[in-house]
Amino acid sequence: MTQPVRVGIVGLGTVGSGVVRLLMESADHITRHAGRPIVVERAVCRDPARDRGLRLPADRVSTDIRDVSRDPSITVAALLVGGLEPARSMMIDLLEHGKDVVTANKALLAEHGPELFELARKKGRSIAFEAAVAGGIPIVAAIAECLAANRIESIRGILNGTSNFILSTMEEEGADYADVLKLAQAKGFAEADPAMDVDGTDATQKLAILAHLAFGVWVPWGDIPRTGIEGVDSDLMAYAGELGYRIRLVAVASRSGGKLAMRLAPALVKVGTPLAETRGAYNAVSLVGDAVGRMFFHGLGAGQMPTASAVVADIIDTVVGRAAITFRTTGVLDTDGPAARMGGMDTLEKHFLRVCVNDLPGVLSRITGILGEHGISIASVIQHDPSGASGAAVPLVIMTHACSTAAVERAVAHIDASDVVSGKTVCLSVLDE
Amino acid sequence: MTQPVRVGIVGLGTVGSGVVRLLMESADHITRHAGRPIVVERAVCRDPARDRGLRLPADRVSTDIRDVSRDPSITVAALLVGGLEPARSMMIDLLEHGKDVVTANKALLAEHGPELFELARKKGRSIAFEAAVAGGIPIVAAIAECLAANRIESIRGILNGTSNFILSTMEEEGADYADVLKLAQAKGFAEADPAMDVDGTDATQKLAILAHLAFGVWVPWGDIPRTGIEGVDSDLMAYAGELGYRIRLVAVASRSGGKLAMRLAPALVKVGTPLAETRGAYNAVSLVGDAVGRMFFHGLGAGQMPTASAVVADIIDTVVGRAAITFRTTGVLDTDGPAARMGGMDTLEKHFLRVCVNDLPGVLSRITGILGEHGISIASVIQHDPSGASGAAVPLVIMTHACSTAAVERAVAHIDASDVVSGKTVCLSVLDE
Repeated sequence: MTQPVRVGIVGLGTVGSGVVRLLMESADHITRHAGRPIVVERAVCRDPARDRGLRLPADRVSTDIRDVSRDPSITVAALLVGGLEPARSMMIDLLEHGKDVVTANKALLAEHGPELFELARKKGRSIAFEAAVAGGIPIVAAIAECLAANRIESIRGILNGTSNFILSTMEEEGADYADVLKLAQAKGFAEADPAMDVDGTDATQKLAILAHLAFGVWVPWGDIPRTGIEGVDSDLMAYAGELGYRIRLVAVASRSGGKLAMRLAPALVKVGTPLAETRGAYNAVSLVGDAVGRMFFHGLGAGQMPTASAVVADIIDTVVGRAAITFRTTGVLDTDGPAARMGGMDTLEKHFLRVCVNDLPGVLSRITGILGEHGISIASVIQHDPSGASGAAVPLVIMTHACSTAAVERAVAHIDASDVVSGKTVCLSVLDE
Repeated sequence: MTQPVRVGIVGLGTVGSGVVRLLMESADHITRHAGRPIVVERAVCRDPARDRGLRLPADRVSTDIRDVSRDPSITVAALLVGGLEPARSMMIDLLEHGKDVVTANKALLAEHGPELFELARKKGRSIAFEAAVAGGIPIVAAIAECLAANRIESIRGILNGTSNFILSTMEEEGADYADVLKLAQAKGFAEADPAMDVDGTDATQKLAILAHLAFGVWVPWGDIPRTGIEGVDSDLMAYAGELGYRIRLVAVASRSGGKLAMRLAPALVKVGTPLAETRGAYNAVSLVGDAVGRMFFHGLGAGQMPTASAVVADIIDTVVGRAAITFRTTGVLDTDGPAARMGGMDTLEKHFLRVCVNDLPGVLSRITGILGEHGISIASVIQHDPSGASGAAVPLVIMTHACSTAAVERAVAHIDASDVVSGKTVCLSVLDE
């Protein structure tokens, strides 16, 4: 039998424990794929005494990252600590000491990717990060390897399981945001502090990583226009449903007019299309390559074992040498090309507007008149018979034909500044395929 | 600039021409991914004079495979000739002369895979074959690399675009098999001789290759129970629709009771599930891994550029060295394990039966009585008011609860031997997720 490879696990939270479990419980299977045994030589975590139900001898668990980074017998380290610090310092320590690194930390890569990738290249090491985006879905490998012959034209993704669980449950149960959030927290699909999930931070960071792979450019994630799901109410969902759509939090990156356009926002997706059929804690990515056409991936985007599956695949890739090869060509595309210049999201799309109008004669004509002035033509209008008194605020829902996003934004500003509305207009993109 | 890699293209049909086009038109992009230029040194085909609209100099196109296999400057060959011979002899010639081979020929691998893989291993060469299954969908890489940490529990796939185009068009247009087949031929989605597509040969060969990757066993494709789509009529589709299902040609491989169960047959798939939403010439694969859970892939399974996308990705993988690594561990799983023993498909599933009964008193009781004798319990029955005379043949449609496939087969044989039916009962599996 070939010599085993010794790995260090940094962090024994949900994912770290899952990785140890998978490496130990599926050892025979993994050995066949890696060509040699993969042994957990050392795990470091804050609280080694805590019982995690792992069959890891106590003398292999400690608290000091240096027990991994300074151990010359360890060649591969899985960094499974979340957040920016101490994760960043740990990654630097591991790379400086010659370890190949596997990580699931998307925030770290989105924030410090360029610095860490450069350090790894300088040290002749690799960073593998399949688990950082869309959990068990092999979207990193798909873009970096399998679709390498393609220029990627666009990516659309549901990249956050918590917010998708909330949206699809609101839709199925007709329930309100706050109630479903509580349910998600009770079921373990949402953190006690769900801010990073529901405000879109998590999905935007993943989008920044996908854009790096697909377009060869590091876009600071904070520069990507971002709207979370807090503003989505069951009323909006009902109107979307009436028009044949569902609401999903969609990350978009696409080449448009020689620039790269990106955004993260709730959007209407047509019933029957794959993104609309993505429910619960599932993630999905739909992308278009110039040769392959439209491709769609769907799977569990989070959770202990799906994420561990991706981490262990990366450990195997690192052990057999595939990760080193892939890392050399990761994100080397078009860095001098137009895609490196990020532009506004001025694409031609259908838009869904919910205008909160005062129920008075002539209002519909005023609103549609403003849209007309901005060159926006209307596909359909819904205004239900209001139950309140004349003059009360009622929702007016408008679906436009494909038109410029910038023009719609100008028209909405115009509408919201007029005296016939009471409240801010909601404007969502509409994705028909 | 690093030295270019010189490749030979064997076969300039639809896929071969697409590969040459992609290598030439996306040369800059591909060079970045491969780390060096990839040059088409030589293409061989039967009719070099034919104009394929390629920018390939005439002196690089010839008719003799030896112009590729004997050229020491060529290290990688793409074998893009269909059928068994001369493809098999060509593959052997290429491997014997030290070429790494990339191929899209599923029939060749399903029939002669063990022999060819062994020869490649003996010669220290690799065979890459992403394009042989599901066209542009990277399902080979997904199973062999990305999901390497998982034991695959089951695979379900729509693996033949022609038959899926026919089924989904029949369903959408309410049209008959023969008419839609003609339309598919006119649109170029079906060959003049569609036998291999509609009788399930093509999909079964692809299933055999997937089973090799997922379960490490070469199942002779002819041993896999196979039913094509010729027996699917618009009447069956209407009944399926009434029950909330669509009909798809589904390839199935799953671990069941320590054995590997496989089949290729039309099945009812529930509306809203990914397989049911797979329309037109698209392919789809749904699989379950023990760690990753259920994963779904969807994309164009055939056509010039989607297939070329997969072939060129394999050429890049071969050039950078990933293919050699992956080939070493391909299909090395569980060859001594239970999955290597193929069993009957005796799984517990819901079944859909269409019995052609003589419209006489007591018939429903007879049929349901026979099902009861075989321990099969009934979930729903459809019998529409017959328009014909008493005693005429009318369809009786029955959906069972989950029950043993073997028991259903025995019950159907019993029913078909009885005197109350006129015609053979159609029995299809029902897939609810």
